[in-house]
Amino acid sequence: MTAIATGLRIDPGRLMARLRDFGDIGALPGGGVCRLALSDADKAARDHLVATMRGLGLAVTVDRIGNIRGTRAGDTDGPPVMIGSHIDSVATGGLYDGTLGVVAGLEIVAALNAAGRRTRRPLAVVAFTNEEGARFAPDMMGSGVHQGALDLEAMLAVTGIDGTTVGAELARIGYAGAAMPGGPPPAAYLELHIEQGPVLEREGIAIGAVTGVQGISWTEYSIAGQSSHAGTTPTALRRDAGVVAARIALAARAVAEAFGPPQVATVGALDLRPGLVNVVPERARLTVDLRHPDADTLARARAEVHAAAETAAAAEGCTLDTRSLADFAPVAFDPELVACIEASAGARGLSHRRMPSGAGHDAQMFAPDCPSAMIFVPSRGGLSHNVAEYTEPDQLAAGAQVLADVALDLLGDPA
Amino acid sequence: MTAIATGLRIDPGRLMARLRDFGDIGALPGGGVCRLALSDADKAARDHLVATMRGLGLAVTVDRIGNIRGTRAGDTDGPPVMIGSHIDSVATGGLYDGTLGVVAGLEIVAALNAAGRRTRRPLAVVAFTNEEGARFAPDMMGSGVHQGALDLEAMLAVTGIDGTTVGAELARIGYAGAAMPGGPPPAAYLELHIEQGPVLEREGIAIGAVTGVQGISWTEYSIAGQSSHAGTTPTALRRDAGVVAARIALAARAVAEAFGPPQVATVGALDLRPGLVNVVPERARLTVDLRHPDADTLARARAEVHAAAETAAAAEGCTLDTRSLADFAPVAFDPELVACIEASAGARGLSHRRMPSGAGHDAQMFAPDCPSAMIFVPSRGGLSHNVAEYTEPDQLAAGAQVLADVALDLLGDPA
Repeated sequence: MTAIATGLRIDPGRLMARLRDFGDIGALPGGGVCRLALSDADKAARDHLVATMRGLGLAVTVDRIGNIRGTRAGDTDGPPVMIGSHIDSVATGGLYDGTLGVVAGLEIVAALNAAGRRTRRPLAVVAFTNEEGARFAPDMMGSGVHQGALDLEAMLAVTGIDGTTVGAELARIGYAGAAMPGGPPPAAYLELHIEQGPVLEREGIAIGAVTGVQGISWTEYSIAGQSSHAGTTPTALRRDAGVVAARIALAARAVAEAFGPPQVATVGALDLRPGLVNVVPERARLTVDLRHPDADTLARARAEVHAAAETAAAAEGCTLDTRSLADFAPVAFDPELVACIEASAGARGLSHRRMPSGAGHDAQMFAPDCPSAMIFVPSRGGLSHNVAEYTEPDQLAAGAQVLADVALDLLGDPA
Repeated sequence: MTAIATGLRIDPGRLMARLRDFGDIGALPGGGVCRLALSDADKAARDHLVATMRGLGLAVTVDRIGNIRGTRAGDTDGPPVMIGSHIDSVATGGLYDGTLGVVAGLEIVAALNAAGRRTRRPLAVVAFTNEEGARFAPDMMGSGVHQGALDLEAMLAVTGIDGTTVGAELARIGYAGAAMPGGPPPAAYLELHIEQGPVLEREGIAIGAVTGVQGISWTEYSIAGQSSHAGTTPTALRRDAGVVAARIALAARAVAEAFGPPQVATVGALDLRPGLVNVVPERARLTVDLRHPDADTLARARAEVHAAAETAAAAEGCTLDTRSLADFAPVAFDPELVACIEASAGARGLSHRRMPSGAGHDAQMFAPDCPSAMIFVPSRGGLSHNVAEYTEPDQLAAGAQVLADVALDLLGDPA
């Protein structure tokens, strides 16, 4: 990798060392981490982050939802360039999801410090509270509150899977800060993240210039039929809720295949009642997760699955109840920033492609309010939310380098 | 209803009163009964049965698996004509499943007694232990041990859903009898039962002359794919165990439709792991229950579902594990007895039809060893294993009357 003329060279060894340090906090015996939001392990990681930020000379603030911000002053006051992500994890999480983005921000600060380099704008590195939503729903909580998409008081009152509340747990671990979340929008928002999917690895590409976050539609279908004896009920007289559920599941798959990439459809949960080998199911419940970067296409996919569900239920004499569980409009990242990521990757001799993000990220909370973008690096086997999550050190370093180059362009030289 | 010249007239009022008496034992608040095998409620029903048998002058024996037999002597020793069924129920059972067959036997004894009528052969009325299998598997346990299809000691050692064993519970409720189950086969075995399906009601027919019990094949399919992110994994790269499960479920339905009645296929249980809305399922498990009265057709149905399962798994890059949970060959009842049931129904002016039994019954354990047959009466809405199970009093009486006529023919007049 050759540093471009105006660039800053990040230190891959220092980046990896910091990733390993975070990986030791909440480490699971077989690899990976469990750092559920606001748990003791999350507190330990936060303490480590705050100490590291202070060690790097950053001014640290904690806001009321627990977001941790470390700011490196610029030569002008004004809004900072923000580099963010999260350090909480799912229960069996990997070492890179979220943490990479925060650590890469720290590395850029370290590299600037080492080079004695000043910037025009301030640089803020932020770890947002509870991006995963694994302990407290919804996910992207800290960034959502920060950008006003979620209500602070409502989020503090959220009860988690263990009966605790966000507010009480923030106070317990000492991260109920005084600062009001948000304030003036940053000059720009950047986030480096692992892809969490297999596309970059399959195509042998180093850098994903993320064009936006897919729209997400989650629907729960509940089907009511008639429980009856598996041996004595002729097929024509059955009202089998399970058959309807299977038809809906395959209709969702058929829509994904008919629409083609990037349309995806997933039936992740499906239950039958009473769930006995010799009883025709009386009730079935399934979820359908549809995603597409284009809002109209997503709506069309949802309508097609709905129609197939209604047809299947009617044909089987079952009733159908449809409930929307989530509905996120697609988010588009800033075209100039996307182009800047491509140019920076190209200047470093790194292969790159544009791609949407299939997963939600803190960055999408910023996209409506300031120029925002994301950089993806490959995930081995596409694995994520999994202790086996892995990205090669030089792939991680390449992503951090592109992030540094783009950030430096935005931070600007002192006047 | 006009009694035929040589017949015995059963008393519908007495029959209904006895059904109501049993229905009070283990009664559920909303109707129906819970008389799980060897429970306190089953003990109370057994005590009531033994007292009733003694009141009718029957010689009562209890065997080591807890089957209760009440014998009315004939003018000759020899093997008895046996009328049997069961008085245990599923957890939310109806008033007629099983109990009708035992109570009809008692009513025939009462009618014979009232008429002062002697018979050539002895008449044995039997309640078999644990026909339902709802607390202890397998079902048809008492009749299976009685006929040597199940091993006595192995069945006494069976542990139930609540951790108790059959042997311990038999001892606890005082029904671990001294008699060895079985002995010489009866002269004939007869069982009156509700249809537990909708056919007789739909066709407005009073009496089903049961030609046999369908063959039953239960298969569990376990599918292993790859868990991945619902938002980031393109369709073509998915190994979705749930999609395979849905394809198998619909293949089973398609086989039932292609083969036509009486082929039936049921997917009663289907689970996905991890079962989360936004995770492509890594594992799926489903059961397929196939039934047909012809062994070859049943084997062909099973082979077609197997082939479809293998094709679906291979197409999705999943592995498939196939496990047989149960495999009962079809049972044919005695053609002469079936014809006798038809003739008796006809002589009473009752509409009748031949039909297979979709469900398993104690009678099938006797079919290999002695002339055996069953009589069905309609089930309202086809409902069974349900507190709403219902058959009209005159339909119950018609079935008991045909049972009496057939039994009397077999019992014969004194020499």
